[in-house]
Order: sequence, then C-alpha cells, then structure tokens
Amino acid sequence: MVLTIFNAVKRVLVGKPFRNDRLAHTLLPKRIALPIFASDALSSVAYAPDEILLTLALAGVSAVAIAPWVGLAVMVVLLTVVASYRQNVHAYPSGGGDYEIANVNLGKYAGLTVASALLVDYVLTVAVSMSSAATYLTTAVPSLHGQQAAIATTGVVILALVNLRGIKEAGSVFAVPTYIFMASILGMTAVGVFQAATGQLGQAPSAAFEIVPEPGFDEGLVGLAGAFLLLRAFSSGAAALTGVEAISNGVPNFQKPKSKNAATTLLLLGVIASAMLAGIIYLANATKVHIVLDPATEFLLNGKPLEEGYIQNPAISQIAQTVFGSGSIPFYIVVAATGVILVFASNTAFNGFPVLGSILAQDGYLPRQLRTRGDRLAFSNGVLALAAGALVLIIAFNADVTKLIQLYIVGVFISFTMSQLGMIRHWGRELKLSKEPAVRRRIIKSRTINTVGFFMTALVLVIVLITKFSQGAWIALLAMFVLFLIMWSIRAHYDNVAKELAVDEDSSPRALPTRVHAVLLVSHVRKPVLRALAYARASRPSRLDAITVDISPEETEATVADWEKLEIPVPLTVLASPFRETVTPIMEYIKNMRRDSPRDLIVVYIPEYVVGKWWEQLVHNQTALRIKTRLHFESGVMVCSVPWQLKSSEEEAKKLQDIQ
Amino acid sequence: MVLTIFNAVKRVLVGKPFRNDRLAHTLLPKRIALPIFASDALSSVAYAPDEILLTLALAGVSAVAIAPWVGLAVMVVLLTVVASYRQNVHAYPSGGGDYEIANVNLGKYAGLTVASALLVDYVLTVAVSMSSAATYLTTAVPSLHGQQAAIATTGVVILALVNLRGIKEAGSVFAVPTYIFMASILGMTAVGVFQAATGQLGQAPSAAFEIVPEPGFDEGLVGLAGAFLLLRAFSSGAAALTGVEAISNGVPNFQKPKSKNAATTLLLLGVIASAMLAGIIYLANATKVHIVLDPATEFLLNGKPLEEGYIQNPAISQIAQTVFGSGSIPFYIVVAATGVILVFASNTAFNGFPVLGSILAQDGYLPRQLRTRGDRLAFSNGVLALAAGALVLIIAFNADVTKLIQLYIVGVFISFTMSQLGMIRHWGRELKLSKEPAVRRRIIKSRTINTVGFFMTALVLVIVLITKFSQGAWIALLAMFVLFLIMWSIRAHYDNVAKELAVDEDSSPRALPTRVHAVLLVSHVRKPVLRALAYARASRPSRLDAITVDISPEETEATVADWEKLEIPVPLTVLASPFRETVTPIMEYIKNMRRDSPRDLIVVYIPEYVVGKWWEQLVHNQTALRIKTRLHFESGVMVCSVPWQLKSSEEEAKKLQDIQ
Repeated sequence: MVLTIFNAVKRVLVGKPFRNDRLAHTLLPKRIALPIFASDALSSVAYAPDEILLTLALAGVSAVAIAPWVGLAVMVVLLTVVASYRQNVHAYPSGGGDYEIANVNLGKYAGLTVASALLVDYVLTVAVSMSSAATYLTTAVPSLHGQQAAIATTGVVILALVNLRGIKEAGSVFAVPTYIFMASILGMTAVGVFQAATGQLGQAPSAAFEIVPEPGFDEGLVGLAGAFLLLRAFSSGAAALTGVEAISNGVPNFQKPKSKNAATTLLLLGVIASAMLAGIIYLANATKVHIVLDPATEFLLNGKPLEEGYIQNPAISQIAQTVFGSGSIPFYIVVAATGVILVFASNTAFNGFPVLGSILAQDGYLPRQLRTRGDRLAFSNGVLALAAGALVLIIAFNADVTKLIQLYIVGVFISFTMSQLGMIRHWGRELKLSKEPAVRRRIIKSRTINTVGFFMTALVLVIVLITKFSQGAWIALLAMFVLFLIMWSIRAHYDNVAKELAVDEDSSPRALPTRVHAVLLVSHVRKPVLRALAYARASRPSRLDAITVDISPEETEATVADWEKLEIPVPLTVLASPFRETVTPIMEYIKNMRRDSPRDLIVVYIPEYVVGKWWEQLVHNQTALRIKTRLHFESGVMVCSVPWQLKSSEEEAKKLQDIQ
Repeated sequence: MVLTIFNAVKRVLVGKPFRNDRLAHTLLPKRIALPIFASDALSSVAYAPDEILLTLALAGVSAVAIAPWVGLAVMVVLLTVVASYRQNVHAYPSGGGDYEIANVNLGKYAGLTVASALLVDYVLTVAVSMSSAATYLTTAVPSLHGQQAAIATTGVVILALVNLRGIKEAGSVFAVPTYIFMASILGMTAVGVFQAATGQLGQAPSAAFEIVPEPGFDEGLVGLAGAFLLLRAFSSGAAALTGVEAISNGVPNFQKPKSKNAATTLLLLGVIASAMLAGIIYLANATKVHIVLDPATEFLLNGKPLEEGYIQNPAISQIAQTVFGSGSIPFYIVVAATGVILVFASNTAFNGFPVLGSILAQDGYLPRQLRTRGDRLAFSNGVLALAAGALVLIIAFNADVTKLIQLYIVGVFISFTMSQLGMIRHWGRELKLSKEPAVRRRIIKSRTINTVGFFMTALVLVIVLITKFSQGAWIALLAMFVLFLIMWSIRAHYDNVAKELAVDEDSSPRALPTRVHAVLLVSHVRKPVLRALAYARASRPSRLDAITVDISPEETEATVADWEKLEIPVPLTVLASPFRETVTPIMEYIKNMRRDSPRDLIVVYIPEYVVGKWWEQLVHNQTALRIKTRLHFESGVMVCSVPWQLKSSEEEAKKLQDIQ
C-alpha cells in the first residue's frame, strides 16, 4: 500500500522512534543552555543592522549617520525586554510561555491571540533566518548569487527532515557554533575598534558610493516624513529582539536553582546581544558601510549609476572584508559562523512550533491527533506544518529578507505586550496573597519592571503597526486572524461535542437494548460469509437474518442454491433492486426494521476482504465501504466488519508490524 | 462532504435515476433501427475518401486518379464484411458481439484480445469522429479554424454529460439527422452525376493546384514504394468499414423476426454506405478535388507555393461547393448533416463502450463495481473512462483526423478477423450436430461466406499492420496489449480469490467459536462509550474488558475516576504507552489475547462519532480509523463500529437520503 511505502521512506529518513523516557530531564548547565536558547536572539544581528541602514538610506547618506542612535534605541528596548522576562522566569519556574501567561492571566481570547501571533512568528523565523542564511552563503560563494530562494528552500527541507528524526540528540551540538559566532563577531569588533583607535581602520567596499535619496528626502531626515522614516528604521531594527522569549519557555531544562540560572542566562544573553549589535552598528558607521534597497537606482559612483552585476553584501560581511581583508580566513570564519547561526535560529522554531502546537491541541484548539507526540519525540505534524508555511513564504517573497522582515516583528511584539500585561495581572494577584513586607517589596519591584516592559513593548508595537502595516505586516496580521478563527472554531466544536456527549442523568451505564437483531450481508456463499455467519451466531442475537440483493438473477439463484445446499440454519432474504443498485435496498430494509421495532439494536455483519496491494482495494470492498458509510448515519445500528485475510494480506501485515 | 457536492452536481447534470423496467425492450422497427445503428458506419464517408486522396497525393496528381479503384477495393471489402456479419446475426439472435463470438468459439484469450481491440476502438471512434466533426464545423464557420481541438474537446465533454443522463430516451432522435445525412449525400451525388452527364459539373476549388510529389515518387505510383503507397491508401480507406458490426450487437432490439430484420437492415446499411462512398469518390475524381497532407509544401499554384492561410476543406465540403455553389443553402445542409452524423457516430461508442465494460466486469475482467449499472441506465463509470480516453487522444494529436486514423483501423480489423474465425468454428460445430441436408447446406453456405470474410479481413489486417504500424498503429496495439494485461490480471486475481475462498469440506456452516471475548476501547467516559458498552453487553460475550491507553496521565486519571463513579460493571484496563502512541499498545494487547486463547473470537467495540462536515472528519475518528485498519489484518478479530450520530450529522444524513 502507498502508506507502507510512505512509512518505509519515513523510517529511513527519520530513524526509529524514541521511548518516552528519553525525554526525561537532561538538565542543562548555563554554558550549554545559553547557546541552545540564544541562537535565535543572537542571529538577528545578521540582518537587523542592515535593515536599519537601508531604511535610513532612503533619506540619503546624512541619514545613515543616525544609525547608531537608532541602534541605541533598539538596545534600550532589548535590555528592557530582557529585564521584564527575568521577572517571568522567576514567576513561572515551570516554564510559562507567553501563550500560557496570557491564557492564565488574561483569559482564553488573549491566550489564543498570543498563540496565533507565535505560530505565525515561528513560520517567519524560519523564512527570515533561512533566507538570510542563503544570503550569507552567496556572500561566501558569489557564483550562487540569485539562487537564494532555491538554497533557502533546500535548507528548510533538510531542517524539517532533521527535526522529524528528533532533535534532542543534537543538544550539545548547538554550543560550539554559537560560541564560535559570538567569538567571531565580538573578536571582529575588538579588532575593528583597535584599528580605529590606531587609525588603521579601512573603508567598507561600499563606502565610496553616493546614495541617491528618495524623492522628498533631498534634505535628509526632516519633517513628518523624516520622523516616520526614522520610526520605520527603528521598527526594522527591532527585529533584533526576536527570540529573547526562548529562555522563559525553557526554565524546566535548567539545572537548579532553575529560575536563578535562567534569569542569569537571560541577562547574559541581553548583554551579549547588545554588545554584538553595538559593535556591528559602530563598525558599519566607522567603515561607512552603505546599504540600500536597490543598488541599481540608489547608488552612484562618481555621479554615474553602478555597473550592472554589483552584488550588495550584508553589513557583517562588508565589515569583515574591511577589518580582515576580502578573502582572508577570518573573513570566511565570520561569514560562515553567521550563516550557521542563522540555520540554528531556524531550528529553534522547529523546536518551539510543534511544542506550542501540542499544547494548543491539549487545550482543544488544534485537532487531537497533534497532541500525541509523533515518532522520535518530535511532533511530526507540527514540523511538517511549519516547514510548509516557511516554504510558502520563501517562495512567495523569493527569499527577500527585507520584504519578509516587514511581516515579522508585529507578531513578536503582540506576544511581548500581551505577556507583560499578563505579568502585571499576575503580580497584582500575588500582591493580594502576600502580607510579608519583604516579599511585597519584591513583587512591587517585579511589577514595576513588567509595567515598564509593557509600556515599552506596547509603544514599539504601535510604532511597528503604523510603519509596517502597509509594508506587509497586514499579511501577518491576516494570517494571525485566520489562525485565531480556525483555532477558536475547533475549540468551540470540541466544546459543543463534549457538551452533547457528556454523561447525564438520562444516560444509564446499565441500560441494555431489549433485543438484538442481527443482519448478515451475503453476496456469494464463500468462506468469508461463513465466518461472518459463525461470528454473528456466536453473539447469540435475538434474531438473525441473512440478506442478499438481487442484482443479477443468475447469481442470486446460485447464491440461494448454495445457501440451501449447505443447510445453513438462518433464513436468506432476497431483496429486489429495481435500480440494479446494492446500497439502497439494504438501507430500506434496515430502516423498515428500525420502524418495526425501534427499541431493538440492529447489528449488521459485513464480510470484508483484507487485501495486500493497493489495486486489490479497487477491485474489492467498494460496496461494503459505501454501505458502512450509509449505515453509520442510522442510530441504533451497529456495523461489524468481519475481516477475511486473503493470502496477499499476510505480507502487508508483516510490513505493518515491522514499521510500527 | 465533498461527496455530497459531487452527488448534488451529478444530480443536476445527470437527472434522476431510472428504474430497471424502463430498460425493457422498446423493440425497434427497421426504419428506426437503421439510423440508430448505422450512424457510425455511414459517417466514415466523411473522412475515408479524404484519407485515400491525400495518401495517393504523395505520389502526385497522376496517382490521385487511381482513387476510384482504391474506393472500389474498399467497397468490395465492405460488402464482404456485411455478408459475413449477416451470418453472425443469424447465428446469434441474442446479439453476439464480436467479443462474445470470439470468447465462446475461440476461448478466453481470443475473447480478451477482441475485447481489448474493441475498447481501444471505441475510444478512437470518439476521438476521430469528434475531430472530424470539428473540422466540418470550421468548414461552415471558417473563423473557428485552428480551434478544432478545443471544439472536439468540448464536444466530447457535452456528449459524456448527455450520456450520463442516460441515452435511451433519445432513441428516435437519431432517425431524423441520419436520414437527412443519407438524403443530402445521395442527393448531392445525384445532382453531381446529372451535372456531369449534362457537362455542367464544375471544378473543385482545389482543382487548379498542382501537387508536388514526395521525393522518390516523381514518376507516380511505380515500383515497390508505389505498391506500398497504394496499400496505405487502401488501409486508410478501410476506415469506411468501422461501425459495420454495430447491428450484430443490437439484434435483440429488433422487432420480430429479429434475425431476419437485422440481416435485412445490415444489407441496407452495406448498400447505402457503398453507394455514398462510391458517389463521393466519383465526384471527387470528376471535380478534381485535390487533398494533401500539408498544403503549404505540397501544393503549387502557377508553379508557386500557395499564399499563407489556405484552408483545406474536406472532400464532401469541396464537392458540395462545386455542385451547389459556395455559401448556398444546400452546401450548408450537406456540411451540417455531415457534422451532426459524426457527433452521432461518437455517441454510438458512448452506448457500446459501457455495455462492453459491464459485460467484461460480469466476466470478471474489470472491477465488479462496473458491473452494476449506474444511474439512469447508463454505465457511468464506462462513460467517464471513454470520455477521458478520447480527450487524451484529441489533445495529444491536436484533433488531427489523419494522424488519429493511423491508430484506428487496426483494432477494427483485429475484431473482424477474430469474429469471422470464431464463426467458422461455430458453423463447424453446428455442422456436426445437424443431420438434415437442407440445414447442413445452409450451414455450409454460411461457413463459406464467413471463411471468405475471414480471409478478406485477415488480408486487410495484414495490409493495415504493414502499412500503418510505424505510422501510429503501434500506439493502438500497445494500448490493446496493456488493456489485455490489466484485464487478464484482474480476472486472474478474482479467480485466485474465488479459489481461496471457495467453501470446502473444512468449512462447516455450523461451527461456532468456543468463546467470545469482547474488548471495548475507551478514550473519555462519554455517551458514545456508554452506548458501545451497552451494545457490547447486549451481545452477551463470554468476557468483556474495557481498555484505555495512557497517553496523558491527567486524562487517564479522569477517565478512571469517571468509570468508577458510574459504577460500570466492567473492568477498565489502562495500557501503558511508552511511545505516547495509541495504536501499538492496543495491537499488542489484542495479540496477547490471541496468543493466550487462539480459539476465542475477539470482538473489538469502537465508539465512533458520525459527523456532518468534512472538516469535522479531520478532528475526529482519525485514531479509530488507524486502529480499524490494523485490526483487520488480525484473524479471529472482528471490529464493531458503534456509531454516535452527532447533531451535525442529521443534516448530512437527510442529504444522503435525498440523493440516493
């Protein structure tokens, strides 16, 4: 069967399933936890500075000089958010994700809003990070330029397969590249600062280009339009904050004292991320890295447009070229480390998305089957959904990081804001429960920090909404809205079903149907029919009838003759079929029985052939399937399939056993 | 559900189902039977003369003059075949089609060969006739030129829909256009002959063109190549014979004396078809209709190639222009009548194909579900298969009649030849049974006619194979071979299954399983589970166990607590699930039961939700479905689905009832 092939392929690609116990807590020391949870947050320096620079460049070269101030504003927000999440970590040592904090403290609609935002953001994390990784790969291997979409697509597919195999085994693999990335960026910053101090710092490859400002920005960042552009640059730079919340989800994985260690790690993350961001933006400014949306129209060299074929490299790559020299080994290390960390950042989404999906399924917002974990401790369905979403985005936006960023940050700040609001509520409740002054003081301090965090993130959310809505954020918002509706409907459906099916006073677990009326469907008198007959008789029904539908007179005659010859002690009724159709006469017969004795239970025994090959399905059981579907709509009717395993099914059964 | 939409659409397009009784014999008088059965055979004069002319034209204008002789040869074969089939009609008054004659007299392999050939030929009849009809439409409406494939495609789709509605109601509709067609072609011939006699017959529009012969044919039809071309022209002209066998299938529909009336009608058909073919070829010759494969390269006017945009019209159209004048009313009548008759010819395939399909399904060569007639007395599956095949051919060959003809005739002559061979056998057997000299003389006469028919058609088959194989006949032969293999495999499969399942000494219709061990699958304690419990208890098993799989400890606890609270008198076993998986623990539990008491019958009761909307299927029953599939591979295990009809299913149930 097709399923078998699929399963076999899956087994080869994905490996054997894990046992539950292997999930058991492998508690992480801070030095391992930091790289595991930090790759998403740290990796955003690979694209956030570029977005600030190219947005400001719309107002010409003078505006680009403001980049460090924009960077500073982003850093302030980043450190505020880190401080806020340190409070979350202390409040929810069991690992309260933003969804749970909003759900518990603000109610299910808030929770569902955050969940929708997070799901969309996970998809965007994969799309943005893989697209950016593809760009860094083309920086190192220029001949691949123009193939970013294909590279990113391949990357997502590989990552999905790796995650279907189960990712926990790769735990410590994360540590090394993340540390290499930190070391290379911070090292580059140190060398660059030293060169600048000694007057040896060179000029970036793009330093010589003049920037043609957009119409209306000839005088730089002035007026309302200038302010708006500044805010847009800030919004884009805020992409640096994505992934900060990861540690707060992972508190249970830390060594004891969990909360304290997690909070310390979070602080470390904030400091390192800020330092890297500051370093990149400082060096970009010092080496005059010029980055624009469209080099062909916005750059001039000696007053003339650039020659065709100019490839604009990201800021980190240009800085590495300037500090270490193009083609030098340190240059390749920086670029490679950045590319790798971006892939790892995508991978954090592959960890987070299925976990969130299973929590949502547990809460009834997604289909139940997503709740149980798939093979190898990974939630296969979630992995597949995430990969599919990311692939759609990458292909739709041709792996263009700048375009994808416009969709990105809105979801992050929706969940930041909601989560902080939830934390304010949380501390308010805690405050009511506590009398001890020292504890109350600590709670009030935490609440103050979360309040500052709330206003800060809410302000950024408003700025992001204003500056990004028409740029693409509407797509992300629409996707969230649709997800919200879907999940809300699924939950409403499950609630309705649960209400409809709840055991009430009327439902007695001891009531039995008065009589059982068994009906055996007969086509030919063959072994499967005899087996079904035996099974039907073994259940000792009050009454047992065999029925056959008269499609072809000759065959019916043969069936009746065989029936009599075997002296089967059950009457065989022949149903007329004016439409030469099997299902309707049977349905009418059953319905008549229901009408005659509505309190009886009717049990329909259907002999079925169990076959081995997919095409055998096409030539058998089609009618049985249609009858079963129709019978299921009749209340008081139970359908018993009596399988007869054809020899060809044995091999298939063995295969199924090997697989599962 | 999707099915519902499909059914609703089908109902609107196809109408209500017919009752069986409406099939009852509406016996046809000869004057109605002739047009009903003759449209296929008569319509081939719309393209057969053209194929003769354009094949001969490859050897230049002198070769074209030989066309009447080729036509005469085709007529001789035609009349021989008619004479032969008159014997078939007498021998099989119950309507022995070629398949049945071959099957009965030559064995199942011969029968299957003929069946394959006929199926392929039905598809080709539709493709060729509709493509030719499209050409005639563009003759009348030149602005449609180049759109033939689209027109033919649309035609096939419409015809398929009409046939899905059931065609019998249209019976006498056939008569009028067929008689108009006969009258217009024979009338045109009469007028043309009169004009020729009185010296008033004009020249065809293409008479003035010189024909550039193919390289190697500069001296006309000489040598081996010339002979080969002559045979090719004859093979193409033999397309005129397609459809002659139709009457022999339809004998039971004739008024009494059936055989005699059918034989007379067949003779009439032969005479009329010959007369029309003779008329068209005579007039094409007399008016110097020149038809070539590629007008752009093969035609010269005053020594120069034709201007671009010359549209080559079929012979009948050119003759009608010459005899009646271009744009005159009789011209349009001839062209329109030809187009309509071609559509009717396609339609005969839509009648024949599903009938043959259901006969083959009855004999076990096609899946059983094709055997029962679909709604409205038409065999819906066959109609759909035929339409799909014809559409593939029309699109693949861009509705090019000349190319399609190359595939066509081989199948027809395979079935002619086999059928005649079968008839020789038949008469041989009859001869052995009969002593009476008068009867014996009649049998010997019939056998002689069929023997002549056999040799004639076998000769033509050889000619067709030699001249057409590389031209496209190999495609048709390959398709027949594939169909043969498929049908042979299906039959072999059914035979094996029947052998495997036949009731033998070991299978006693009175043996019962020693004990019945019932197992109830529980997920939550809800009404459906209580219903399943009641049904399970009502069947009074020797032992009844309830089992639940421990996926989430909290839910399992709740289930156990509910179970105890209701004081359900059945033990609930909790199965551990180290892989957080539902199916495997249940399967292992059942297998252990089988091992412990292999002679017991195990009945697994599965509560199932019956839902109304397709998406509800996605959020329910997925696990139940997987469990059922796995359980079916276990022998000694019966699965009972206990349906619980959710409220949303009521509407769906009503819809299903309205439809079926």
